[in-house]
Amino acid sequence: MVKAIIFDLDGTLINEDQIDRGLVYVYKTNTNTFKGITQNKFIDANTKAFDSLLKMYKSRKILLSQFGILIWYKTVKILNLPETPIVVNKLYRSLQKFIISRTIPLDGAVEVLSFIKKSGYKVGILSNGLFEERINKIKKTKLSKFIDVLVTTDIVGFDKPNKKPFKFILDILNVKPDEAIFIGNSLTEDIYGAKNAKIKAFWYSKLKEGEVDCRIYDLVELIPIIRNMSNKLYGN
Amino acid sequence: MVKAIIFDLDGTLINEDQIDRGLVYVYKTNTNTFKGITQNKFIDANTKAFDSLLKMYKSRKILLSQFGILIWYKTVKILNLPETPIVVNKLYRSLQKFIISRTIPLDGAVEVLSFIKKSGYKVGILSNGLFEERINKIKKTKLSKFIDVLVTTDIVGFDKPNKKPFKFILDILNVKPDEAIFIGNSLTEDIYGAKNAKIKAFWYSKLKEGEVDCRIYDLVELIPIIRNMSNKLYGN
Repeated sequence: MVKAIIFDLDGTLINEDQIDRGLVYVYKTNTNTFKGITQNKFIDANTKAFDSLLKMYKSRKILLSQFGILIWYKTVKILNLPETPIVVNKLYRSLQKFIISRTIPLDGAVEVLSFIKKSGYKVGILSNGLFEERINKIKKTKLSKFIDVLVTTDIVGFDKPNKKPFKFILDILNVKPDEAIFIGNSLTEDIYGAKNAKIKAFWYSKLKEGEVDCRIYDLVELIPIIRNMSNKLYGN
Repeated sequence: MVKAIIFDLDGTLINEDQIDRGLVYVYKTNTNTFKGITQNKFIDANTKAFDSLLKMYKSRKILLSQFGILIWYKTVKILNLPETPIVVNKLYRSLQKFIISRTIPLDGAVEVLSFIKKSGYKVGILSNGLFEERINKIKKTKLSKFIDVLVTTDIVGFDKPNKKPFKFILDILNVKPDEAIFIGNSLTEDIYGAKNAKIKAFWYSKLKEGEVDCRIYDLVELIPIIRNMSNKLYGN
């Protein structure tokens, strides 16, 4: 009997970060910090920093949630700017501000979450990221009224697809693996991760490739699936 | 040749968190959330939550930096309140606001940091905690102008006394272990941690107990020590 529906956040319920345009915003709103450095040189440095962090992430040396601050330490280092925590924090917050201002719910997200809540299920969000960043996005998109629990990397200490974040949110939601379903857009993090934790998962993807048991192309496809679960439950 | 001086933050350069008084503040400024719950019942729940996290921390199941949000998930669970991320975040931010408003530099901190900067050394801060929390404390106490680098648990993924956070800050400061000295008030986290990373450490403690090579009872004792290092360096 399913009691809780758990979603990934970025790319599943809300649009993904628009880092490219965000970098232009960071450059233009921090001209004092970047004196004598062109926009292209700045973006090159940030791309180099990102690539080196991605390499560390792929070899499991760092977590995804560490990117946020680290990328600025690396960027200012490459640019030979002072790496003071105030500068690092200012650039970090500047990009965050841009990203949050541009964050919107994806098509169907409000409709589906509203239906799920009305049907009496608990709703969880499990995100590889920082709690403060994610809660700000949830507030901005007004999705908070539908959400019972938010679990992020910084409060678990592990990223999806490790099964620990999944076990963690099940524990807070007080449900067993077979009492939850998971919906996410990342085959590796979400679908394989949920499988690691023995949670039934739906892959939300516009792609045609990828071998998965359950797939949805549109979030609203969840509505008849969940209605069907509820009907079976109450014998209607 | 020493090039960088690295400090712990809480209890070394600034006063430690005043959680007890902070909890009273959280209770009194969030009466709507705690409807029907007495202050004592709330504080009992928070203490229970803290004790259970401490047990997890001691058995290395969680990092110290995870306490901040987790304690509120556990507290509202014990009190049977809705564990929504908005409530959890509101209580977390409320305690943070109190703590930061009460944060002041410890005796001698400004004098010592100012002397170190004037003497041409780099200054690092290595703290078991979250970057955002720590940078806010550093801003509040106006210590930021003395500090070159801040490294926290969330950007390393490991707590002191693990040697990884120490290696991490040496790397950002671009110095070798024997080119740094470390000052901290925790024998376990700071002194044993620095020793793990082969960094010479001074234990800042008012206690008389504890077996350590180097100890200071007062931060200003660092001034002649550092002056002496500089004199040797320049052959004065």
